[in-house]
Amino acid sequence: MQAEAIFTGTELLLGQIINTNAALLCQELARAGISIFRQVVVGDNLQRIKEAIQEAGKRADIIITCGGLGPTEDDLTREALAEALELPLEENPLAKEHIIRFFTVRGRPMPPQNLKQALFPKGALPLDNPWGTALGIFLKHKDKLYACLPGPPSEFSKMLKEELLPLLEQYGAGKEIILSRVLKITGLGESTVEEKVRDLLKGTNPTLAILAKTGEIHLRITAKACDSQMAQELIKPLEEQIRERLKDHTFGADGDTLEGVVGNLLTRKGLTLAVAESCTGGLLAHRLTNIPGSSAYFRQGVVAYDNNIKVKVLGVNAKILASKGAVSEEVALAMARGVRDLAGTDIGIGITGIAGPGGGTPAKPVGLVYLALNCQGNAQVRRELFQGPREEIKWRATQSALDMLWRHLKGHA
Amino acid sequence: MQAEAIFTGTELLLGQIINTNAALLCQELARAGISIFRQVVVGDNLQRIKEAIQEAGKRADIIITCGGLGPTEDDLTREALAEALELPLEENPLAKEHIIRFFTVRGRPMPPQNLKQALFPKGALPLDNPWGTALGIFLKHKDKLYACLPGPPSEFSKMLKEELLPLLEQYGAGKEIILSRVLKITGLGESTVEEKVRDLLKGTNPTLAILAKTGEIHLRITAKACDSQMAQELIKPLEEQIRERLKDHTFGADGDTLEGVVGNLLTRKGLTLAVAESCTGGLLAHRLTNIPGSSAYFRQGVVAYDNNIKVKVLGVNAKILASKGAVSEEVALAMARGVRDLAGTDIGIGITGIAGPGGGTPAKPVGLVYLALNCQGNAQVRRELFQGPREEIKWRATQSALDMLWRHLKGHA
Repeated sequence: MQAEAIFTGTELLLGQIINTNAALLCQELARAGISIFRQVVVGDNLQRIKEAIQEAGKRADIIITCGGLGPTEDDLTREALAEALELPLEENPLAKEHIIRFFTVRGRPMPPQNLKQALFPKGALPLDNPWGTALGIFLKHKDKLYACLPGPPSEFSKMLKEELLPLLEQYGAGKEIILSRVLKITGLGESTVEEKVRDLLKGTNPTLAILAKTGEIHLRITAKACDSQMAQELIKPLEEQIRERLKDHTFGADGDTLEGVVGNLLTRKGLTLAVAESCTGGLLAHRLTNIPGSSAYFRQGVVAYDNNIKVKVLGVNAKILASKGAVSEEVALAMARGVRDLAGTDIGIGITGIAGPGGGTPAKPVGLVYLALNCQGNAQVRRELFQGPREEIKWRATQSALDMLWRHLKGHA
Repeated sequence: MQAEAIFTGTELLLGQIINTNAALLCQELARAGISIFRQVVVGDNLQRIKEAIQEAGKRADIIITCGGLGPTEDDLTREALAEALELPLEENPLAKEHIIRFFTVRGRPMPPQNLKQALFPKGALPLDNPWGTALGIFLKHKDKLYACLPGPPSEFSKMLKEELLPLLEQYGAGKEIILSRVLKITGLGESTVEEKVRDLLKGTNPTLAILAKTGEIHLRITAKACDSQMAQELIKPLEEQIRERLKDHTFGADGDTLEGVVGNLLTRKGLTLAVAESCTGGLLAHRLTNIPGSSAYFRQGVVAYDNNIKVKVLGVNAKILASKGAVSEEVALAMARGVRDLAGTDIGIGITGIAGPGGGTPAKPVGLVYLALNCQGNAQVRRELFQGPREEIKWRATQSALDMLWRHLKGHA
């Protein structure tokens, strides 16, 4: 079975947003073994959406649209699907109930135009959307499967994975599957990683690709096989070879994040953490607390943007601050110790640096960052010099802090 | 003149890369006044690329392809274009010279398959590529313009701007330009915004569109005109009308962010800020400190994930914490007051809630958030109930905090 995807939205044709849903859809279809041969993007125009659906219906077995299911007048996908297939729109009682309940729960009046979202082409099933009023549409019509999902990425992603793909599987889609595994590398640059795996890049099944991300490197192994177990067997030996060559740097795979891996290690070792941030401005605490359950080990963050706060709240020695400057090894170490004492945790991390674009000097340029870690009284510190815009320097500094913490926890008894 | 774009590359259909070239192309075409009604993505398959070119040639005046101009066997765009238009491929001497020189300058031997890149459909012009061997292709054929550019984003971007767009202009494309202005709305839902501007959505030049983002709504005004001043004059009256109708909600336009607008107001009024976060885990401090120069008004953040920290560092009354619970109006107010006292700022913000996915109860479900603001002793608090995954709840909570702060600063003398 072959799929085609249609993305609607004038904002896509004006280049105002990047179509990240397209990549997500294709990844998930590949994982499910469904081939996709074409994506089409059209604006919020009834005639053009309708034509795109009809053309796709001539070529593909599964036609998936994304976007245009909202309550406003330029949300036209349901009308376009009905016209393309010459089916009437009918009110679906379950959908109507879902929409009314959405507003009731929030104690807000329902604008009448939201009821348009309860209209479905005759014979279509609604797909549940737990986060919004835009239910998806699923329809089998003349041996073809049609599905419409809403455009907001969080809703699109959840409904694709939890509603549409299981349905497509029931309908028998997916023969040969493509499986990828991504190994995640910290603490090495792209060319160093490439040197270590260069001979492995020439394979055909599985293939190996290097992807440079901000502050980490990903190695993607991709195998084709008739089922997922076969694909995993193709991937396994290559994965082991890479892990052996890069064992001090491979922190995880696939959906793993450095903050998640570090969180697991903290949980397993029963250690608690507090962080004191200057130039990263809360990003390290934000990343750590993105992990569900992080409250088990993360106690406190202090964003000390002001030197007085460093002295008053974190207990940094004012004389050292004055003589060495806020961006110094000594202050990073004192912040790590200070926040650990304040929060009563096993580990404290201190970060101080210059995120830019202003504030740099020849001796202390933009991008200079000191990072310190204090674990039960044992301290270490590192100096980094990052390039890039403000937000990238903040990100790279938190990446380095997590790398330092990961290395420490791996070595910790 | 209307354009259509075709992107080739199996990696796009596997979802392994995100098609950022599409957004760039559309932005540049809009700026140049060339309308684009459709984008198509196909894999590295001769037949499918050829069909996509032929279909586009039936609808559009300008057909632009991206990708598939390299030297390898799965680079098929030049062959597909020649077959689609039934033109022979001929070696172009200038192109051959360019390729040979590329290798000579680098002191590397030229692999023989690179000479394939010197082949052009009869009558086509090469477009210069200073960074690679893949020259672009430009061809006028039966009143249509065909252009092929390489896929690597840096080459695509440079050649689009410096080679293709000037050529299209010479051929008379883009008499009209398209200019957009985006007004940004906070504190109202999508359907309420639509109700307020519904009569304005039917305009044709300028057009108005509603885009729902996480925690804010964007209204995009788009005008077509023969130059940018004319377009601005078309946009201006509609913008004024919208600003008048939504004056308590329009916080900015185009590149403005709520944290940036709030930062400007704090600077202008000479007020300082500190924040105490529980469920948002540092994200509010992170967003505030993403603004260059934020150290002028942002003094301190405290991420109080542990109840003891709320008591010890922020001075929240332990009895109130025990009787009302950490997620309560009273604790949010105490956190705002506590962090303001601690940092000695004019304003303190306190956020406490349940980001999920665990930790919810029937009385205090996941997504429940209390936000408080204390400015020079005057306090206010709001209660919110958000839906979505953990990171979206964190984001929406910081959005609400910034909305509260924005409203307060607008009213502040």
